[in-house]
Parts: sequence; C-alpha cells; structure tokens
Amino acid sequence: MAQPNSTLAAAARERQTQLTKPAGSLGQLEDLAIWLAARLPAPTPNRLKPAVAIFAADHGVAAEGVSAFPAEVTAQMVVNFLTGGAAISVLANLHQISLAIIDVGVASPYPVPSNPRAKLFRAPIAAGTANLRHTAAMTAQQCQTAFQGGYGCAEEMIRNGKTLLIGGEMGIANTTAAAALICALTGYSPAEIVGRGTGINTQQHELKIAVVSDALTRAKAAGANSAMDWLREVGGLEIAALAGFYTAAAELGVPALVDGFITTAAALVAVKANPAVADWLQASHASQEQGHRLALTALGLQPLVDLGMRLGEASGAAVCVPLLQSALALHAEMATFAEAGVAAANLS
Amino acid sequence: MAQPNSTLAAAARERQTQLTKPAGSLGQLEDLAIWLAARLPAPTPNRLKPAVAIFAADHGVAAEGVSAFPAEVTAQMVVNFLTGGAAISVLANLHQISLAIIDVGVASPYPVPSNPRAKLFRAPIAAGTANLRHTAAMTAQQCQTAFQGGYGCAEEMIRNGKTLLIGGEMGIANTTAAAALICALTGYSPAEIVGRGTGINTQQHELKIAVVSDALTRAKAAGANSAMDWLREVGGLEIAALAGFYTAAAELGVPALVDGFITTAAALVAVKANPAVADWLQASHASQEQGHRLALTALGLQPLVDLGMRLGEASGAAVCVPLLQSALALHAEMATFAEAGVAAANLS
Repeated sequence: MAQPNSTLAAAARERQTQLTKPAGSLGQLEDLAIWLAARLPAPTPNRLKPAVAIFAADHGVAAEGVSAFPAEVTAQMVVNFLTGGAAISVLANLHQISLAIIDVGVASPYPVPSNPRAKLFRAPIAAGTANLRHTAAMTAQQCQTAFQGGYGCAEEMIRNGKTLLIGGEMGIANTTAAAALICALTGYSPAEIVGRGTGINTQQHELKIAVVSDALTRAKAAGANSAMDWLREVGGLEIAALAGFYTAAAELGVPALVDGFITTAAALVAVKANPAVADWLQASHASQEQGHRLALTALGLQPLVDLGMRLGEASGAAVCVPLLQSALALHAEMATFAEAGVAAANLS
Repeated sequence: MAQPNSTLAAAARERQTQLTKPAGSLGQLEDLAIWLAARLPAPTPNRLKPAVAIFAADHGVAAEGVSAFPAEVTAQMVVNFLTGGAAISVLANLHQISLAIIDVGVASPYPVPSNPRAKLFRAPIAAGTANLRHTAAMTAQQCQTAFQGGYGCAEEMIRNGKTLLIGGEMGIANTTAAAALICALTGYSPAEIVGRGTGINTQQHELKIAVVSDALTRAKAAGANSAMDWLREVGGLEIAALAGFYTAAAELGVPALVDGFITTAAALVAVKANPAVADWLQASHASQEQGHRLALTALGLQPLVDLGMRLGEASGAAVCVPLLQSALALHAEMATFAEAGVAAANLS
C-alpha cells in the first residue's frame, strides 16, 4: 500500500500560511490542497487529470421489484453514456474529465453507437448477478474476476497519467446490494440504511428492507464473515469492480474521489479488507440516499458538499471536481505575501 | 424591476422530468437550472457568461484597530488582483470568469502594473470613508455616487453580454461596516453578527463589537431610518457600489451570485430599499464569518455550499460558478427519455 507523503503535506501546510490571504480563510480548500499535495508527485501540479470509470452490471435482485425502473434500463443507460446524453456525459465534457464505461455484467443486449463519446470496455463476467435474496450474488470466481477487472482499469488509468480516479456505477437495483453491504460491514440495520433509490414508493421501500434483511440472514447462515465474503454474497459485479478500483488507487498511490451510495459501499469493502485504502479516498458529496452519511462516517470521510443529489453514475463526484481543481490551482498559483509585496497580518 | 419569466420556469421544470435520470435525482442542481432558466433569455443557454467586479475602498474605522491587517493592504491587494496573484485572480482564470477591479476609494497610492491580468477602473470617490464610529461614513453625495458607480458597472457588463454578475470587495476593516449594516437592517445585536474578519484576537473582537455598537447608537441618534440612510452612516464606498450593482442586475434582469459577508450586507441594503431585487439573487457559499447565515436568511437565500471560507474578493462565489455551469449544462445537454430510448420509471 502506498503512503501519503508527510513531508510534502508539511510543505503544503507551510505554503498555505504564506499565500496572500488571511490564514485559514480558504477553509476546506486549504485542507484539500494539503491532502492532494501529499498524494501527488512533487512539485504539486496546478491541475488534476481526472478520469471517471463507470462500471455497469445487472442485479438478479431486480426481479423482487426493488427498483422504480425496469432492469433493461442498465443497458439503455450504457448506450446513453456512449452517445453523450447522460448526466455524467455532460459533466465529464464540461469539466474535462475522461470517461470510460466498463461492462462487467450487463444482462440485456445493446447496440454500440458508431461514434461513441466515451470509451467502452466490454468485459461481462455474467449476465448480472444471482438474486441475493435467495442465493449468493456471485461465485467466488466471478467476484474475484470483477475485483481484478476494476483493479486493472485503475492501473491503466494511472499508466495513462491520470491523477484523480473517480469510480461510478450503473445497475438497476444496485442500491439494494449496496445497502445490504453497508449493513453487513457497519452493523447498522436495514431500516437505517435502505433508501428509496431511484424513487420507489413506501410499499416498495418496505419490500426492499425485507429483501435486504432476508439477504443478510441468508448470507450470515452461509458463513459470510470477511468483507470479501459479504461482497460475494450480497454485492454486485460493478461493486466488486469498484472495490478493486479503489484498492489499486491506494496500492499505486493515486487519490480517488468517492461518489455516492453504491461507490461508498464498494469503498467500505476495500477499506474493511485493507484499512490503508482509506488514506487515498476523498468523499465528494453527501447523497440524499438514506444511509450514505452513516457509511461515509464509517469510512472516516467528510463530504465536501450536500446538494441533495442521488443519481449515481459518478455525477456527484464529477460536480465536485472543480472544487478540487480550485483548491490545487489556488495552492500552486497564488502569490505569497513576499512575492506580492503585501503586508502580513499583525498577529498579537 | 425585471420579473423572472414564470413560463420559462414552468417549461424548465417540465423538461427536468423528461431528462434521463430519476425525477429529482439532481437535487439542488435541478432547482438551480429552473431558477436560471427563468432569468436567462430563451432558449436556455448551456453555459453562463460570468463576470466578477471587485469594488475596492478603504475605511476610516480601520484606525480603531478592528482588523488584523494594516489599511495599506487594500491598495496592495488591488495590485495583487492586477498581477494575477490573488485568490480571485486564480479562480477567475481557472473558471473562465472575466475580472474587473473598480477602485471606488482606495486611500493609499499604488502602481498599476504594465500588463495587468484584470481590467482596472480608477474612480475613487474619496480616500476611504470617515470613521463610522464617530461620524457618518459617507456624505449623501459620496454614497449616491458610489451606488451609481456600481450600477453603471453592472450595466456595462450586461451590455457586454455577461449573463451572471458577481460582486466582490476588498477593503481593510470592511467586515466592521458590513456587520453594522446587517445589525441595523435585521435587528440582530452586534454580539450576534460581529465576527473575527481576517483573524483578530478576542480582545480585538470585543473592541470591534464596541465599535459597531457605538456606530449604531450614533447613527440612530443622527436619525438613520431607511436602508440608504444606514448605508451612508455605517457602510462603505465599495458596499454602496455593490448595492447599486445588485440593483442594476435586478432592474435589467440578469441573475447575480452573492459572495460572502460584505456582499451580503450590500445585497441586504439593495433588497431593503427595493424588495424585488431579491428575485435576482442566488447565494453561493456560507461564509465562516459569524452572522453570514443570519444575513442570508434575512434575504431569503440558501447557500449552495459551506466550505468554511471567509476570504471575500468574490472567492466563494467564484468557487461556486462551476456548480451553476453544471446545472445549466445538464439541463440543456442531457438527453430525454424519448431521445435516448430509455424506459421511464414505473410509477405506481
């Protein structure tokens, strides 16, 4: 596991006191700059090179009626990512973030547009997971392959010079899997963690809580114990890939920006399996999805913003990329008191 | 006063329900897009053209020792804005925001750099205000001239095609003037509103509260009643200019993004003088400066983010510009369910 560079952090902290502003007056942007400086090559660059990888897969548990949308929407949204019509497509273009879609288990067939606006990697491991209410979502082999797929994706992005890794996901019913994982790994109850996902009604919400409870009971009886056990039992192919993605970021020493509810569940798996992964994670937004703040707190992460978003597909993280760019640009480009000939504070 | 277009707002609200995302899942970005759509020419553009105007002026009350910085820093920071070393210089460059500095009353002389990175308008009305603890900060004529200067600046930006107006300020000791104005216009006490500004110690903070209390007592005895009376008595030249700036935005129908503590005090003056101005104001961040949230609430505004910033010079607003650009780009560029061939939710 890579270690953040404490010497660079100290130098960044010192530089922040010399920039032409009252000490501390940039608030969290100062903390962000110091955090990034400890995780980027010296000298601290003035821009990040961010990359989004969206892992897409289907979920057998969709058959239980836990989502407001039909399962075919997973495939339809993959096409929407490729043709540039999805929220993340717009945000990636606006904020100059590279975008790749990785199909690790989309069940429905879909056409690949001739001039895609994003890279597509088709590496489906299965036509979605099994129904986690009744059986393990994945075999150990499927889970491991998905994890390694995500790991390899991060490795390739780092090889291509990316300096901020952002995972995203698409998978109808995946808030059910994420909620089950968060319950299993934090000890919170399904009633505390299960939310309304894409917008289900109260009856469906009660059903979703029952499905998660059943899954937890089943998996516990099956002997689930480690984070990887729970990932296989109640997770998803895209969630396993995201856990591998965050693990690679930490092992290779590149900061990762966490998105919403599902990516946070994946980050929790990676951190429970290897606590040092947390040193490389920065939260972006607080999702409106119930339980997200509890899951972030379990990771020791603080969200930068709360905009009431709950879309997934890395959209919350993408919206926050300019905040990180702002922090880094201010750190690298502002003049010091000495350079600008500005008088410092009379501190008494 | 211009009116937001309710027909365009309704059309934007309807379009938000058709975009390829669960209804409401972009949270406040949806509200922002609808708010902007009602205030921009149709069809809703996919990018804003933002402009920052920083009004700079000195304050006689600095002689009381209410700031951590010497008064000369106002002039020194004007030079720093022009040479590109200030926080707002970096942010304006990063987020493609035009930047103009308007000297409405800087007391110290300063050199103008030969290749300035921002426009400078030198229109000093006085060498700073009088000491508001002991006398009216401005004459009625000075206050009116400053107000009209800010009004004219907004007019020119609008003539140049800018579609988002952002006011900023620089003036050592201006949190003292802003606190006095906020107290006068909201009824909160100095203890509730006066903060630590650029970072004063406890003793200076107590002094600053006493100075504001004295100013309020003096101005009330002098017959201050209307918002414009209070502006003249306890405000500042840059605050008067900002009040004119926001008034012009509202009269000419262009949205304005409010920055921090001092700009909010100016917005409060404009709104108290003409309540319809509030329809054209969007808050950006919650400043760490004590009393800012109370002042925003008095304006009926909700901040988008709270990053613990307290720098002024439009830096908090500039950091939020990408959020507004995100909201507008998503609104204009996302595909609808029909366009993308994505199935809509099964709403029961």
